[in-house]
Amino acid sequence: MIAGGLIAFPITPMDASGRVDGEALQRLVRRLVEAEVDAVCVLGSTGSYPFLARDERRRAIEAAAAETSGRVPLWAGVGALRTDAAVLHAQDAAAAGAAMGLLAPMSYTPLTDEEVETHFAAVARDGGLPLCIYDNPASTHFAISDALVERLSRMTNVVALKSPSPPGPEAKDRVQALRSRTPEGFSVGFSGDATAAETMIAGGDAWYSVLGGLFPAPLVAFRRAVATGDLEGARRLDRALTPMWDLFRAFSGLRVIYAAADLTGLCQVDPPRPILPLAPAAQAKVAAVIEELGPVLNGAA
Amino acid sequence: MIAGGLIAFPITPMDASGRVDGEALQRLVRRLVEAEVDAVCVLGSTGSYPFLARDERRRAIEAAAAETSGRVPLWAGVGALRTDAAVLHAQDAAAAGAAMGLLAPMSYTPLTDEEVETHFAAVARDGGLPLCIYDNPASTHFAISDALVERLSRMTNVVALKSPSPPGPEAKDRVQALRSRTPEGFSVGFSGDATAAETMIAGGDAWYSVLGGLFPAPLVAFRRAVATGDLEGARRLDRALTPMWDLFRAFSGLRVIYAAADLTGLCQVDPPRPILPLAPAAQAKVAAVIEELGPVLNGAA
Repeated sequence: MIAGGLIAFPITPMDASGRVDGEALQRLVRRLVEAEVDAVCVLGSTGSYPFLARDERRRAIEAAAAETSGRVPLWAGVGALRTDAAVLHAQDAAAAGAAMGLLAPMSYTPLTDEEVETHFAAVARDGGLPLCIYDNPASTHFAISDALVERLSRMTNVVALKSPSPPGPEAKDRVQALRSRTPEGFSVGFSGDATAAETMIAGGDAWYSVLGGLFPAPLVAFRRAVATGDLEGARRLDRALTPMWDLFRAFSGLRVIYAAADLTGLCQVDPPRPILPLAPAAQAKVAAVIEELGPVLNGAA
Repeated sequence: MIAGGLIAFPITPMDASGRVDGEALQRLVRRLVEAEVDAVCVLGSTGSYPFLARDERRRAIEAAAAETSGRVPLWAGVGALRTDAAVLHAQDAAAAGAAMGLLAPMSYTPLTDEEVETHFAAVARDGGLPLCIYDNPASTHFAISDALVERLSRMTNVVALKSPSPPGPEAKDRVQALRSRTPEGFSVGFSGDATAAETMIAGGDAWYSVLGGLFPAPLVAFRRAVATGDLEGARRLDRALTPMWDLFRAFSGLRVIYAAADLTGLCQVDPPRPILPLAPAAQAKVAAVIEELGPVLNGAA
């Protein structure tokens, strides 16, 4: 499976002007490599790719590649509003050592299915690396229909799907629906940490995780539990993370993870403006959950 | 009234790599100046501002300013995903001769009201020119609530609102609701050509028009009819444009206007990819409507 298991999404530490802090990013990536995640994806939505200029994106990928150094596959978000920019980002990512490009149909002017299909075809043809379809309508404002997933999944170089996870009870049907639309060997994975667990238990190929980009231990343990058939243990781990999933629902995973990175001393950076750091009351809630879940988050439970 | 009457939005002619064709833009702007629109706004959504790099945006404003040359107020879209970028775009626009910046809360990561308020405060403080709040949830994916409009409208340098027009029967209530939220002298105007007419008849200050960016004559005539109290004549003009409004609803104003600019020979350019030119069947419909409405569009009816 080219895209299987835990795909971890670190934030991209940057200063107020959008200059990437490569060393801070490497510290985050190092934790992920040591925890044996299945892939590290820089410049996902959690990695704020739409907020970064081309040269800063390239610097982020190069810094991460120096740290993964072939031990763990490196992925990179390559999305852009313009098709030619997405092609260039993909070429840059390939040149910097990424093994996979994550391509979301960013939009401003609402796009048609044909426009998104043509956009993916251009990046698949000219980008120079395999692509994962990144369906994230909450951010891109374009929902990729199952019919369009089917067409995209048959393009040369399009090898995986990152799909929003449905509510738990619908996970099995959703995995099967996407499998029935996509070729043999095509990877069907899910994002949305709060509800992704059941998609893995239902046979999904990959969990695209925000929490796993900062605290990989419980997600790696979950993936191993599923792989060995210990579904009860897997669900116990997911349930233990409920206070964190509640924070994600209340404040968004991105804002919570920035606060957590700061609170744990891993890197003191703010999200890119206009996104604001969490207010003190919300930060206190994050701190309380990190304290409460400490052993789980650090793999000691 | 600092922002009143017909604000016309031309497309930004550019090549496939996003290089602006300043001469073609000037041809479009010249028509608007000659038709005596009340302001020309380059780099609106119709002007594809999110698809243009900073230096190309600057070139577009400079080209337009050379054409308006003080005869008609020049506005420019200054929105960006990053707050610091929006500030720079505003400063560039002011330096290039724009009299007003149009600021939309572009979003990728969904934003909170506080984040949008902080974003506007930064651009209003440091941008160096008056601002029009650009509420366009279909593109920005952030809906500015009336409570937030109220807060933004009280900021120094925030002087106007471009709001989506409601269905005709709701126009009067909507204009009054926004008036009651905003300071005396603050401009309340509307976009959405297909339904904007009734907002002007109901006392709205400005019509932010896509059609008016290519065919200003019927919109200028409409504005004059309203100003002289000829509401029947104004409504007759709006009704005459129904076939065009139907095209806008079916294909989006942006795509229709690109096709119309091409069909009328005013400039042969494509929208920025991934946006595709209309398919031949749709173009034929646009051609038929332009033919049918020729005298109206050219101000001869």
